[in-house]
Amino acid sequence: MAKKFVYIFGGGRADGSADMKNLLGGKGANLAEMASIGIPVPAGFTITTEVCTAYYENEGKYPTDLPKQVNDALKFIEEQMGSRFGNPDNPLLLSVRSGARVSMPGMMDTVLNIGLNDQTVEGMIKKTGNPRFVYDAYRRFVSMYGDVVMGVQAESKEEDPFEVIMQERKKQKGVTQDLELDEEDLKWLVKEFKAMIKQRLKVDFPEEPAEQLWGGIGAVFSSWMVPRAVSYRELHHIPGDWGTALNVQAMVFGNMGDDSATGVAFTRDPATGENYFYGEYLTNAQGEDVVAGIRTPQPINRSKPVAPDAVSLEEMMPGIYKELDDIRLKLEQHYKEMEDIEFTVQQGKLWMLQTRTGKRTAHAAIKIAHDMVQEGLITKKEAIARIDPDQLDQLLHPMFDPEAEKEVLAKGLPASPGAAVGQVVFSAEEAEELRDKGHQVILVRIETSPDDIRGMNAAEGILTARGGMTSHAAVVARGMGKCCVAGVSDINVDYSAEAFQVAGKTIKKMDWISLDGSLGEVIAGKVPTIIPKVGGDFGTIMKWVDEVRRLGVRTNADTPHDARTALEFGAEGIGLCRTEHMFFEGDRIDAVREMILSSDRQGRQKALAKILPMQRQDFEGIFRVMDGLPVTIRTLDPPLHEFLPHTDGEMEDLAAKMQVKVEAIKDKVDSLYEANPMLGHRGCRLGIIYPEITAMQARAIFEAACQVTKEGKKAVPEIMIPLVAHVNELKLQTEIVNKVAVEVMEEMKVKVDYLVGTMIELPRAAVTADRIAEVADFFSFGTNDLTQTTFGLSRDDAGKFLPDYVKLGILERDPFMVLDQDGVGLLVRMGLEKGRQTKPELKVGICGEHGGEPNSVEFCHSIGMDYVSCSPYRIPIARLAAAQAVIREKQEIQRDV
Amino acid sequence: MAKKFVYIFGGGRADGSADMKNLLGGKGANLAEMASIGIPVPAGFTITTEVCTAYYENEGKYPTDLPKQVNDALKFIEEQMGSRFGNPDNPLLLSVRSGARVSMPGMMDTVLNIGLNDQTVEGMIKKTGNPRFVYDAYRRFVSMYGDVVMGVQAESKEEDPFEVIMQERKKQKGVTQDLELDEEDLKWLVKEFKAMIKQRLKVDFPEEPAEQLWGGIGAVFSSWMVPRAVSYRELHHIPGDWGTALNVQAMVFGNMGDDSATGVAFTRDPATGENYFYGEYLTNAQGEDVVAGIRTPQPINRSKPVAPDAVSLEEMMPGIYKELDDIRLKLEQHYKEMEDIEFTVQQGKLWMLQTRTGKRTAHAAIKIAHDMVQEGLITKKEAIARIDPDQLDQLLHPMFDPEAEKEVLAKGLPASPGAAVGQVVFSAEEAEELRDKGHQVILVRIETSPDDIRGMNAAEGILTARGGMTSHAAVVARGMGKCCVAGVSDINVDYSAEAFQVAGKTIKKMDWISLDGSLGEVIAGKVPTIIPKVGGDFGTIMKWVDEVRRLGVRTNADTPHDARTALEFGAEGIGLCRTEHMFFEGDRIDAVREMILSSDRQGRQKALAKILPMQRQDFEGIFRVMDGLPVTIRTLDPPLHEFLPHTDGEMEDLAAKMQVKVEAIKDKVDSLYEANPMLGHRGCRLGIIYPEITAMQARAIFEAACQVTKEGKKAVPEIMIPLVAHVNELKLQTEIVNKVAVEVMEEMKVKVDYLVGTMIELPRAAVTADRIAEVADFFSFGTNDLTQTTFGLSRDDAGKFLPDYVKLGILERDPFMVLDQDGVGLLVRMGLEKGRQTKPELKVGICGEHGGEPNSVEFCHSIGMDYVSCSPYRIPIARLAAAQAVIREKQEIQRDV
Repeated sequence: MAKKFVYIFGGGRADGSADMKNLLGGKGANLAEMASIGIPVPAGFTITTEVCTAYYENEGKYPTDLPKQVNDALKFIEEQMGSRFGNPDNPLLLSVRSGARVSMPGMMDTVLNIGLNDQTVEGMIKKTGNPRFVYDAYRRFVSMYGDVVMGVQAESKEEDPFEVIMQERKKQKGVTQDLELDEEDLKWLVKEFKAMIKQRLKVDFPEEPAEQLWGGIGAVFSSWMVPRAVSYRELHHIPGDWGTALNVQAMVFGNMGDDSATGVAFTRDPATGENYFYGEYLTNAQGEDVVAGIRTPQPINRSKPVAPDAVSLEEMMPGIYKELDDIRLKLEQHYKEMEDIEFTVQQGKLWMLQTRTGKRTAHAAIKIAHDMVQEGLITKKEAIARIDPDQLDQLLHPMFDPEAEKEVLAKGLPASPGAAVGQVVFSAEEAEELRDKGHQVILVRIETSPDDIRGMNAAEGILTARGGMTSHAAVVARGMGKCCVAGVSDINVDYSAEAFQVAGKTIKKMDWISLDGSLGEVIAGKVPTIIPKVGGDFGTIMKWVDEVRRLGVRTNADTPHDARTALEFGAEGIGLCRTEHMFFEGDRIDAVREMILSSDRQGRQKALAKILPMQRQDFEGIFRVMDGLPVTIRTLDPPLHEFLPHTDGEMEDLAAKMQVKVEAIKDKVDSLYEANPMLGHRGCRLGIIYPEITAMQARAIFEAACQVTKEGKKAVPEIMIPLVAHVNELKLQTEIVNKVAVEVMEEMKVKVDYLVGTMIELPRAAVTADRIAEVADFFSFGTNDLTQTTFGLSRDDAGKFLPDYVKLGILERDPFMVLDQDGVGLLVRMGLEKGRQTKPELKVGICGEHGGEPNSVEFCHSIGMDYVSCSPYRIPIARLAAAQAVIREKQEIQRDV
Repeated sequence: MAKKFVYIFGGGRADGSADMKNLLGGKGANLAEMASIGIPVPAGFTITTEVCTAYYENEGKYPTDLPKQVNDALKFIEEQMGSRFGNPDNPLLLSVRSGARVSMPGMMDTVLNIGLNDQTVEGMIKKTGNPRFVYDAYRRFVSMYGDVVMGVQAESKEEDPFEVIMQERKKQKGVTQDLELDEEDLKWLVKEFKAMIKQRLKVDFPEEPAEQLWGGIGAVFSSWMVPRAVSYRELHHIPGDWGTALNVQAMVFGNMGDDSATGVAFTRDPATGENYFYGEYLTNAQGEDVVAGIRTPQPINRSKPVAPDAVSLEEMMPGIYKELDDIRLKLEQHYKEMEDIEFTVQQGKLWMLQTRTGKRTAHAAIKIAHDMVQEGLITKKEAIARIDPDQLDQLLHPMFDPEAEKEVLAKGLPASPGAAVGQVVFSAEEAEELRDKGHQVILVRIETSPDDIRGMNAAEGILTARGGMTSHAAVVARGMGKCCVAGVSDINVDYSAEAFQVAGKTIKKMDWISLDGSLGEVIAGKVPTIIPKVGGDFGTIMKWVDEVRRLGVRTNADTPHDARTALEFGAEGIGLCRTEHMFFEGDRIDAVREMILSSDRQGRQKALAKILPMQRQDFEGIFRVMDGLPVTIRTLDPPLHEFLPHTDGEMEDLAAKMQVKVEAIKDKVDSLYEANPMLGHRGCRLGIIYPEITAMQARAIFEAACQVTKEGKKAVPEIMIPLVAHVNELKLQTEIVNKVAVEVMEEMKVKVDYLVGTMIELPRAAVTADRIAEVADFFSFGTNDLTQTTFGLSRDDAGKFLPDYVKLGILERDPFMVLDQDGVGLLVRMGLEKGRQTKPELKVGICGEHGGEPNSVEFCHSIGMDYVSCSPYRIPIARLAAAQAVIREKQEIQRDV
């Protein structure tokens, strides 16, 4: 028997189900599922993703058995819908749509109204009694098919050729709106469109419905590889070899008159997560009209305040609304999820076109997960597992200071929450360019299209003049976690002038504005921001998270201020306190430079003596804030040349200040020059050659710890020696630290418990970790540097080729973003295991930036680390990822059993 | 029972033996051994190295049982020598000398004549009937003891205070020579020396012999840690914790008159290896006089032509000479080695003071090993095991072209062979400084002292005006493998003028001279050099070596010329042919730059097409030379900016030549700038982003291989992709190579077998070698880069701290010189094992510079590599090391059994 490539659905039955997403795509699997549970969907069938893959592997050829399976499925649709494909009297019209495993909104092609030709048009008129509607569908079909399938497209600088013919007719008739064209006009357009296609392509427009159908299927499969789809997949890490499934489905029409409508809804509010039925619809409209943002849609109900002239679906079609609301509840009960649905009402009958897991803001994700636990729909662990840790980032970034004064220029829809401040740009390309140059930008568009994806990603926020809450801009922005204010009809965008008018003002390119995506406000200038609080539902979920996770979460913090922020986010200690930043503050850089310029130990010690009290103060502040929690302090790490000026002018200034000759400074700068500073004289190599630096830092730490202890607080210093390659380096540095510790504690007559450990950030340290653990009290994996050395890849220089590496599929992800588990991770695992061989109780953590990246956190959990350390704002993400790691681990164990 | 710390020897018996060097030191063990086999040695005892170690661990305290054991041993000496320590009538005098495991000539202190005081002096006069000799010994003892044990030393700028008193007496007497001072003068000196010591130190000179003895023991143990001894150990990689043993021995005197003498000899010629008795002596002299080079000694026989006025020991004391020659044969039969011996004749009786393995030149080592096999003294394997591979380097370096014209300025002793060309300097410090600045220098001294060690090491060669073949300069230079011409009495060195006069000329500081250490010639200017031939005894031994070794030895060679040289040295293939050097030759750099400056693929391909025929020619030349042997060719490796000019002037020239704007070039240079070029866009990363470069190189290789095949020779290309971190990189590059291979072979209608493999030079490649071996036909470990990345250490920048790392004992050796087996080696082993897991037949080699370093070669053998690859001149070294690895491995297996 041939392999099954085609899965039917409709009329209360289906071949597939929701768990077959890999084979049927998200849309197809959910259509099958809906059909199975008795929800009305127009009958149809899904061609599997395997066919797409085979199509690309075999140079556009389909499996031989496919046509037969498609024909059988067509018969099923005809039976279900009571009409026949290509039958002039009672024609069935079909849509062909893509449907990948994960949603790629608007990225691939769709062909609607397949089956229309000069014969079936008559049948449709008979069936609908609405010739204008039928000819309107026909001319839409011909232009869509001509464009998408046959490839008639505007050449550069040319206007859309279909649009040109439309304009010509409108001009002849003296009208401006499409709606003003009548049946005859539309009929004329169909003829002219076909003639233009023939003239351009030298082929006839296909009249045969079967040919139309296969043309559509081919076009949709081909659209998997169009550049914008490829870009989208890159951005969202979707492998190209997944392929797309394809859904052929009976057409239903929301534009068959006033008893017809089409809409999009979410079973809960996707922006806030509130539990009410949220959606928009348009009467007498096609589904695409709602999403495209051309007409501003109406709300489906009055659960929230709406515009005074709005007419809700509940008011307009109460029966239909009731039926839809029942389906909403049925879907939530069935999927135990917030669903994103599409529906069409055709002449008083409700059809569901799609259901899928609804995209939501981080706020909404938190609230929905929390509420569903309260409602008994899901367990706490399911709630935790359901929140995307990456998305949490949105919640943890600064929001506008509510106390700040702000000049609101206009209000629009709060399409995607957040606070964005940036300079105005009007094209996606410019947004990318300026971002690459280090600018923060706000992308302002009349409406966005799939071609704008990269620019939207580059922008801090998106502002559109048109479109609703389910418009392209809104959906994509929410998916990206970008702030978006949509449908601000009060702004008047002029692309050619690179400006927009609002409230009597002109905002030009590069002017600063602020967007409040939660309130839908467009604000003049830069509004100051504050740190968000972790409370409410979020706080509750984070409590559940902490009950589940095993891994500790610390923070990287160099100042009392950062430490305080981190504590609010739930930090359980400091995993990395860098001391070099402290060297730049205020006047201390002078003393630091004096030390570097000293030619002997005595001179250096004199300069270090000046730095000592300042460093001690820094540490006191941090110990006071962290009272009782461990504070891992790294001794000086960067090469000394980073502290010296490099331009002639700066060197002259310094010479004057230091009262030395400028040549002395230039000589020093020259002598400190390094071909590869990343692999140069830095880390513990400084403390080995200049032991007085380590001694000063140790003294500052212990004096601070003793002082704070005297004040009745508890200091828990963990001193961390960076860039150790050989155990002997750590031995020498540890001896210095221990010697100073004894001295200071004797001087101050206070005892402080402390640890001395090391960064494991060089491959040699990882492979000789058994030896290093003989000396170290703890290990902290510095995976930034470890990634650089393991790959032999400078982070500063990789930008020139690393993006291509991801594009070419050499690397799945940027290893500086997501820990490379096969390579770097192997060394981390080896280092941990060898370390614990020597010292089973060895404390092990990570303090590279991977410590706040969910996949990497899961890896750290799985190999048995004690803690991860990350920037304050990423702490909740790390906590969540740590809990999810426990949950997934248990699921895997259960699966294995 | 207390531990044994003291081992006696003398009178045909001994507690110790030659294999107890670790405990007794080399000198002590050999004195014991000589005593055991009936060779006359002055009785004595050895205090073990354990006492030295304990002395340093316990802050200068000795084990409690030591004094008793020393007293018992003293009694033994008294019995053997028939005199009593401290007895005024028949006093025994003692020497105290250091004796470490390995010889450290002149580095540590010695105290002679212990036991002399105002009473015993009278006994000695009675015994010898020579008051002047006894008072001379007494004044020498007081000054030596005052200096070495009591620490009376010249303060800065002050003259030696003992010398000042001497001068004063000479002035009073109106004489200039020490010998002109009579008994009374010497007596007066003893008194004045003691008074001066008392005045300076406020303590009396010790009269008690036991106190003198313990003072001497303490001083000698302390001298283990004097800076020059520490330097010497660093230079020779001798661990500080070995400690020294200490020998207390009855004094015998070579300066008791004309029937006394002292000498130094080698059982064969240490410079040439010829089998005749080679040595020097002085009548009526102390042993130190021969070594110090103050009087030019006489030959012991006339086996080789000697100066017309020379009087050999054989002529002077035929009986003694016969006895000595018998001892020589006995020692060679006993030790089966060429021995370095010291002897003293005291009033007609021969005493042997020392025997040890004789240092020898590489030439001599080869000849002696070869001859001893012929003589049946040792086996071939013993001969192989005995040659120091590092020393071979001497033989393999260029020698003076015998055809070259040369102006010989003077002749001296051929103290250490070799050819040295350099600029004259007159102090050790200057030699070091100028070497560090990149100069080649020749160190010129009247005579050298232990303080000059570092300067001698820094120099290309050493020239001394005084001293014989066993002078300090000669012995140390032979040990270092440095060229040395000693005792050139025709030169007149003037330190203050920084010049020397010779043959009517003045050679000033920084003038160039050449030294021929084999002929003893000092030559004006720079003499051109040629490559030595591998033949004669050396050739024979290398044949034995090849019978024993398992490991293949290839060469790193980029040109047909290098390849030819390597073949002469025994290369079995090319392990690394770098293609980038070829890019610089002649006009090609223009095409290379054109390629780099091209903004698109088309432009690059056009430029590459110009390079193609030139690269093809390079490869043809190499394939022809290597006919039938494998040639591993590495694709382009360095970052592209290395091919562009960097100064404004050069950029302007290039712009003119290329007919582009200079800004375009500057922009390109800027855009190619890298923060860490070592970790930047290089290696296969170039071939990935610019696949056309790899394609061109592959084409050049295959066109050349096909062409050479057509000519009837055999080309065996092995294409090597550099800097692979991920198997996918290798996959993409291999696809390109294979595609080109098929194309070219079809075009040229020739089939060529080839391999495609990779460098393993990044930690990630080593740890994922199982994956990489799925694609690679072979691995070649690039341990230069692997050391850089594993340590996180830039070779270009490490110079600032790596020497200190070795000094501080953090690293035993520079890891760029000797493979770091614990760290980098672990990754190499892991890479090899993982690779062979996937592909058991995987060919594995090494092409870092470690491939020619003996310890590293042994490691490569031990982990099962197939070959090492090194520079042509190091091939014999690698072959020898590979054979020694097999021999040592078998010894270890036998030991384990």
